[in-house]
Amino acid sequence: MNQIRHLPPGVKDFLFEEARRRRQVERLLTGLLEQRGYQEIITPTFEYGEVFLAASREEELKNGLPEKMYRFLDRNGQFLALRSDFTAQIARIAATRLQGMEPPIHIYYSGKVFRAEAQHAGKSREKWQVGFEILGDGGFEADTRAICTILDAFAALSLRQVRIAIGHIGFFDGVLNGSVKLASEARRDIKYLIERKDVEGLRLLCEQLDLPSGLTRALMQIPALHGDASILQRARQITAQPSAIAAIEHLEKLWQNIAEHPGADSVFIDLSEVEGMGYYTGIMIKAFAAGIGQEVGSGGRYDDLVARFGRAMPAVGFSFDVDLLVEASRNASQSGGAS
Amino acid sequence: MNQIRHLPPGVKDFLFEEARRRRQVERLLTGLLEQRGYQEIITPTFEYGEVFLAASREEELKNGLPEKMYRFLDRNGQFLALRSDFTAQIARIAATRLQGMEPPIHIYYSGKVFRAEAQHAGKSREKWQVGFEILGDGGFEADTRAICTILDAFAALSLRQVRIAIGHIGFFDGVLNGSVKLASEARRDIKYLIERKDVEGLRLLCEQLDLPSGLTRALMQIPALHGDASILQRARQITAQPSAIAAIEHLEKLWQNIAEHPGADSVFIDLSEVEGMGYYTGIMIKAFAAGIGQEVGSGGRYDDLVARFGRAMPAVGFSFDVDLLVEASRNASQSGGAS
Repeated sequence: MNQIRHLPPGVKDFLFEEARRRRQVERLLTGLLEQRGYQEIITPTFEYGEVFLAASREEELKNGLPEKMYRFLDRNGQFLALRSDFTAQIARIAATRLQGMEPPIHIYYSGKVFRAEAQHAGKSREKWQVGFEILGDGGFEADTRAICTILDAFAALSLRQVRIAIGHIGFFDGVLNGSVKLASEARRDIKYLIERKDVEGLRLLCEQLDLPSGLTRALMQIPALHGDASILQRARQITAQPSAIAAIEHLEKLWQNIAEHPGADSVFIDLSEVEGMGYYTGIMIKAFAAGIGQEVGSGGRYDDLVARFGRAMPAVGFSFDVDLLVEASRNASQSGGAS
Repeated sequence: MNQIRHLPPGVKDFLFEEARRRRQVERLLTGLLEQRGYQEIITPTFEYGEVFLAASREEELKNGLPEKMYRFLDRNGQFLALRSDFTAQIARIAATRLQGMEPPIHIYYSGKVFRAEAQHAGKSREKWQVGFEILGDGGFEADTRAICTILDAFAALSLRQVRIAIGHIGFFDGVLNGSVKLASEARRDIKYLIERKDVEGLRLLCEQLDLPSGLTRALMQIPALHGDASILQRARQITAQPSAIAAIEHLEKLWQNIAEHPGADSVFIDLSEVEGMGYYTGIMIKAFAAGIGQEVGSGGRYDDLVARFGRAMPAVGFSFDVDLLVEASRNASQSGGAS
């Protein structure tokens, strides 16, 4: 009688007003996306676990991502998994059922993702995401459009105390790969320390890994590379690697392109943003809201993912965390809505 | 590479127009329910499996319902299950978080339920349901209101070729329990044959079970007990059991009460409707649409279920199958929408 009156850790019931707020956020986001020409796809809540594993990278597989997947056996003894990532499912669909559609294809979705987060982290194990993907456009325009869609979405939500960080994994990869070939664990650890701005930890790790001193100096500067476009000038001074320079130029152009868009003042460049889904190949985007300790949204460019399902297709996407946005709206209204 | 391009049996992707139609059905149903004063509850996609087992009856447990539950272990080694039934979750919430709310409480929900149906049955393993519950009202009025809400919902969907069957488990239970104490398997088999109107099979089974001839004759008449209110007169002639008579009188009164409600001509009485969720204690409702081989909705009264979670509370509810309603709408529009 006791167990059946309680919920397991990491999941919740949302009653009445709590449900209404979530539906309101969902409706504002999906309404905006419809208006901008995105069309909905509804994917299954579970499917073959291989789909989600295919979207993981070696370092994530080692990082315990598969342990965060909820897995179970089908009646036929096949290994199924709860949806841990919408983008993996949409990549599968893009490679199969969207064959023959004229790109770019604009898609959105709304639903839950499931990850068995450690209990002490206090994270939800069921997260409601609304997100979009732009498929079949590898160009600069699609990145611009994605960022403008995100800005418009936050405007639709009337959330003003939001900050959008834009990084580019090509910068970090360029700095690193030009000099040395690292094991995936070392790469993962370096990323971890950069994101946490732990410059001293980074120095120690580089020492342990016996990295060249030039590379160590470059890596130690990355945690400070966030701010307005002027930091891109500083970034140019720490590397001459062509792919890192290409990433910087991409961000410079993007910065100019979105400058006039409403809400652009909430955007900043963050080259220290290096963690994210392992399949990102270009820009990486994270959204933060006042008083919320986790990202309220994240996304990026993934030009190699769809190919893992059998068809080459560049893409960029972003997802919003509905529960955290409800929390952010509540904070904003409690603080009088001042921005 | 092959497995990751395919979906497991029983689940589907819904793209663009297919998604749009489903959202439209969802919006029409939830809009109507909001208008009628129902408020939304969002429940977790998985929770302790015991919640769903508690809502099962001995005969269902033997009938393989637990095998249809998707079960898996949490990080902590606890047994979790995907939502197989919204009503079980809402009964849990009613017994816990809704303490102290003034009844009747009007609730609705929208989401997926998951059942590992046999593959050959061609049934979906993931079903999208929109449903409502009226909690805390054991009276006649709540049954009336539930049926009127269902009629209004089908009107909102502009689905005209719909038939609503109303039965009462108290009639069957009365006929049976007055005479004899049966094992739950025998009860289940008798129900199965009645629903399939297999009168000859029923005769053979009653013989095998060595039932009294009066009871056998009564049971063999049940499959024909469907139609307008006149069949309730015939039903009176086959039993004198007080609880069966009470069920008949309840249906007579209900029939009169809804007679003037728009859409009432789609309602019929069906005392041969005896199968349903094991927790039903009173009226049982099923909705059928032209050309659809399964019920497009079902529900009933469950006055004992909430008590299993620690608090006595009568209730009645109904759920609509969104995917089948989309199919029914398509059939209706293809046949020119004639009713």
